[in-house]
This record gives sequence, C-alpha cells and structure tokens, in this order.
Amino acid sequence: MKALPNTTPAAGKRLSPRPSQGVEHGGDLTAVRARFPDAPEPWIDLSTGINPVPYPVPALPTEAWTRLPERAQEQALIAAAARRYGVTDPTTIVAAPGTQALIQTLPRLLSQSRVAILGPTYEEHEVCWRRQGHETTIVTDLDQTTDADVVVLVNPDNPTGRLVAVEDMPSPSKLLVVDEAFIDLLAPACSLAGNLPPNTIVLRSFGKTYGLAGVRLGFAIAEPETADRLRLEFGPWAVPGPALELGRLALDDDGWLNATAERLTADRQRLDDILVEAGFTILGGTPLFCLAEHPDASTFVERLGRHGIHIRRFRHQPRWLRFGLPGSDAAFERLRNSFSN
Amino acid sequence: MKALPNTTPAAGKRLSPRPSQGVEHGGDLTAVRARFPDAPEPWIDLSTGINPVPYPVPALPTEAWTRLPERAQEQALIAAAARRYGVTDPTTIVAAPGTQALIQTLPRLLSQSRVAILGPTYEEHEVCWRRQGHETTIVTDLDQTTDADVVVLVNPDNPTGRLVAVEDMPSPSKLLVVDEAFIDLLAPACSLAGNLPPNTIVLRSFGKTYGLAGVRLGFAIAEPETADRLRLEFGPWAVPGPALELGRLALDDDGWLNATAERLTADRQRLDDILVEAGFTILGGTPLFCLAEHPDASTFVERLGRHGIHIRRFRHQPRWLRFGLPGSDAAFERLRNSFSN
Repeated sequence: MKALPNTTPAAGKRLSPRPSQGVEHGGDLTAVRARFPDAPEPWIDLSTGINPVPYPVPALPTEAWTRLPERAQEQALIAAAARRYGVTDPTTIVAAPGTQALIQTLPRLLSQSRVAILGPTYEEHEVCWRRQGHETTIVTDLDQTTDADVVVLVNPDNPTGRLVAVEDMPSPSKLLVVDEAFIDLLAPACSLAGNLPPNTIVLRSFGKTYGLAGVRLGFAIAEPETADRLRLEFGPWAVPGPALELGRLALDDDGWLNATAERLTADRQRLDDILVEAGFTILGGTPLFCLAEHPDASTFVERLGRHGIHIRRFRHQPRWLRFGLPGSDAAFERLRNSFSN
Repeated sequence: MKALPNTTPAAGKRLSPRPSQGVEHGGDLTAVRARFPDAPEPWIDLSTGINPVPYPVPALPTEAWTRLPERAQEQALIAAAARRYGVTDPTTIVAAPGTQALIQTLPRLLSQSRVAILGPTYEEHEVCWRRQGHETTIVTDLDQTTDADVVVLVNPDNPTGRLVAVEDMPSPSKLLVVDEAFIDLLAPACSLAGNLPPNTIVLRSFGKTYGLAGVRLGFAIAEPETADRLRLEFGPWAVPGPALELGRLALDDDGWLNATAERLTADRQRLDDILVEAGFTILGGTPLFCLAEHPDASTFVERLGRHGIHIRRFRHQPRWLRFGLPGSDAAFERLRNSFSN
C-alpha cells in the first residue's frame, strides 16, 4: 500500500513518549543496548523481577488464536487461579490482560478520594490514581494512612521486599488495594486472597513467577459487586485466547511451581552471596529479586552495562540497585566476573 | 492448595453474568452445543464475521512470551499497521488489546455528550457510551445526527453492510467515530484511515480479516493529541508480546492478504447462491459475512442448530440471519445439505 500524496512520510516520525511518561521501568533492552553499544551479547537482563526460567510454552490449540475467547475457557482459567490462590468463591476473581491494566482501571471505580500509597513503591499506582483526579500521598508508614479513603500497598513491596502481615492491614473507609505481584512464592498465609477483608482488592500477577511477562495476565480478587464493576470496565474478550490457555495450564501445574520455588530459593542465595562479596549491603527483596545498596551504585550500573548486564536503578534512591535473578550458571558467572574485572 | 476452612466451596458457584449483559454476540459454541446436544460434531460456527481460514500462526520467538513487550516491538507493529492501512503518520495509530477494548475506552475521553449511533449496528457502541453517562440515540439516517456532539458509525455496517462514502461523513462538533472493523477487503478509498478528518477516530480490527480473533488486537487512528490520550488510558505493555509479533508478520504479508481477498470473494458468492437457493433474500453484508432475510428465519436457526451449524440471529429483527463464511468445501456442503434435509 503506498503512501498518500501530499502527506508527511512515515520515516523520521517518532511515536509519542511512553504512555506513563516519567515512570521508570525495567525490561527494555533496546534503550540500554544503545547506551552501551560495545557490550557483549547476549545481554543479561536483571532489570526486572521476572523469573528468568519460564514455564515452558507448549503448542497451543489453533482455536486459542482463531476463535473469540469463550466464557467456558475464561471460567476454566478462573478455576485454576482460584485453586492456586486459595480463593473459594470464583465470582470474586477477575481476569485481566495484565496487572498493569487493573492498576489503570481501579482509580475509575471511585469518585475523588484521598489515596495513601505506602512507598516508595511501584510508581504506576500513584501515577494512575493521580491521573484520574484523586489526591495521592506517598506515606512511609501505615500509621500515616488514617486520614485516607483509599490505601494502596504492594505486598511484599517492590523493591524493598517489606511485608505487611495480614493482621496489620489498614481498614480505610473506601478501599484497600493490596498488590501481591510478588507474593506467589511466600507462605500462603501472607496473602489476603484466601480470606478477603471487606472493601479490599487484591492484585495477583501471572507473568512474574511464571516468567511469561509478555503474555499479559493478571487477576483482581474483590467482593462480587466490585468484581462485576471491574468486568464491566474491561468488557467481553478482555483476555486473549493464548493467555487463557497458557494461564490455566501453568496455574494448574503444582510440580513446576514447587521445583521453581526450590530453584529460586537457591538462586536468590547465590545472588546475595555474589553481591555481598562485591561490597553490597542486602536491603531486602523477594524470591524474584534482591534490593542491594552501595555508595558507588551508579558506578556499578556503568560497569555492569559495559559487561552487557542490565540492572534497575532508582532515581530517588541513588544508592539502591535492584537485581533480578540470573537464569543460568553462565549468567551467574558473568555477573560475578563483571564485579571483579 | 486446599480450600480454607469455613468458607463456601467453589462448587456450585457461578461467575457473574457476561459483562455486557444483554448484548448478543456470536462465537460462543459452548452455549449452542448445550441447546442442541444431539447435533453432529464438529460444529460449524457461522455466527461471527471472522475469516474461517486464518493467517497461519508460526512458532513465535520465546521472548515474545517471556519478556515485557518492548517499545521497539510496538513501533514495528505500528509501522506495519501504518503501511497496511495507508496511514502516513504513525503517531496517529494506537495499538490496543482488541477493538472492543477501544470501544470501552472512547466514551471516557469526553465529558457528557449527545451521542448519535447510526443503527441498528454492533450493540457494544451504544452500551459503552451509555454506561459512561452519555446520552445515546440510535438513528437510522445521517440526517438525524445534526444535533449530536458525537456520531458513531460502523462502516461498512455490521450486519447490514451499508457503506457510507467518505464524502458523506458527518462532521459532529466533538467527535466522529468510524468503526472500520470490516473494511479491510474493500477498496482503500472507502476508508478514512489514510486521510483522517479533524475530530475523527477510526477503528481497525486485526482479528476478523486475519481469522485470529483470539489474539485480541485492534487499532485506533486519531489525531496525535487524542492518540496520546488513548495511550495514557491503556498504559504500558497494553498489547501482549505474541500479538505484537504475529500482528506485525500478518500485516506485512501482502501475498497472503491478496490470496485471501480472492478466495473470500468467491466464497461469499458461493454462500449467497446457497442462501438464495434456500429461499433467502440477500440484504447485504461484507466480504466476511452475508445478511439474509427469510420469513421463517427462526425455523432455520433450529434446523441449522440440529445440523451443528451456528448462525447469528437478531433479537429486534426476527427475519434477519447473518451467515459467516464456511471455511471448506465440506462446510459449504454441510450448509447446503442442512437446508434440503
């Protein structure tokens, strides 16, 4: 198809900035490759908290691609999620095309509110509530949330790993949002999913633990009326057929998850040992990442970049670095060597 | 993971009703199988306007599943869409996880408005604008849209196939929405995509022409400022990695599309011939479906159902039936035989 006459050619045009302009995210190797053009390939991406050893993607039935997703397929996914997350009433689970899509949607459920976010944490929460006209405050302690209509917390926190116990959860007047994106491999009793307090929405992510972030699949667990509201916001066929199929298979697979939990525990220890040896102080983390501190953090970003290793830094915490897990012995060795060479 | 004690067991619980409660859609075989338990398998689903001979899904790179979708991948998809749709400025294209997701989102861009929808047409437009508090009217002629702030039309229309010429488009004060879901195989000059009027949003669907409705991929074409607003509504990583990859491959494939256009033209004629032979009057359609009328339409729904053929009927037009295209000689023969036996 040729370009129409009298119009600007596509070449040279750039897409407008990333939607969440100003929010830093890990996981984009294109940008970091441009910054370190001489770095060895392949890059090792430790800039996210995504499991580097993914659930193996099988050949999916053709119908998952070709047909509109059917209600029965969605129900099968929800049943697998209910079992995995210990949720007894499947009507309280909403499947969405990624947890980020839910984070974008939650602020639309309420009229203008005072929103306290326990932080610093995953920045999209604040950005999305503020964009919908809510008044947001970042608080560093739950004691500071007493005046808020809505409280948002990431549990365990990203990046600090701070875990608020179930019995210490606040009870704001309108809504408590608990983003449990990194809770999968902690003890089930850490999660609110199985015993949801009133006026609470729990978010669970599929892509991180299962190493399938490209699939875009997340869940909200909420009281049935709120769950219905969320389903209306997304409308029909919100989750693609391949995600319905793959999500169900993976969430039903106890063997894979148990083996993964064991491997990740060992790998997290191995990562910590390397970082301590390199002079870092371990501040916290989850089974999928480690938050470490070093007075010369920015120097390490440069050094690792030259070695083709991408890590996550934090604008407002220049001494902090977050390391995802290397996915192989070779990747662990490259990380170790990049500190000593 | 076992169920927690003292809670209602999952068994017996049902998911709440389909989000767009009351809106009829084709494409769900589970429900129709239950209505006709003795029908022969496999069912032939003619209830949608989805190409029954899909673009072949290749093995996708592992990274499409495992990694967060990168900006560069999205740009490559947008470039392919721009070329396919004759759009010269890629900043005017927004990729979304399905056209339905865009239809859900557009009503959020405007304050309360008078919305005229040229109908009867795809019902989700009205439902979504009304749900966001707008005042909606279904009009049967564009002359009745002069008082409206927003005009929505599906072009060519689903199900009638009515085509409004580019030069006859209305210019409402706030926004013109033209849903071009079924325009791919018409002459390029029928589309507004390549020469967007002010205050206009054009919607293009990927899944119908390419037979990949499960992938959930659609595009909005809008002025750059509106496109930016839409991107903000969706946030980062809105389109899954497999959809980015597959969409780019398919939209770049001229050979497949040309062969498909030729086949669909022949198949549409073959379908019409069968329907006329069975006593139907052809009212219209697109290359992907045929709208036909018969005084005993409801009898045919039953008869075809017993033969394992699912078609689309219309609550408010009991004499109308919409037939998608059979995907093989065998399917054409089953359709023909079901009328004569």
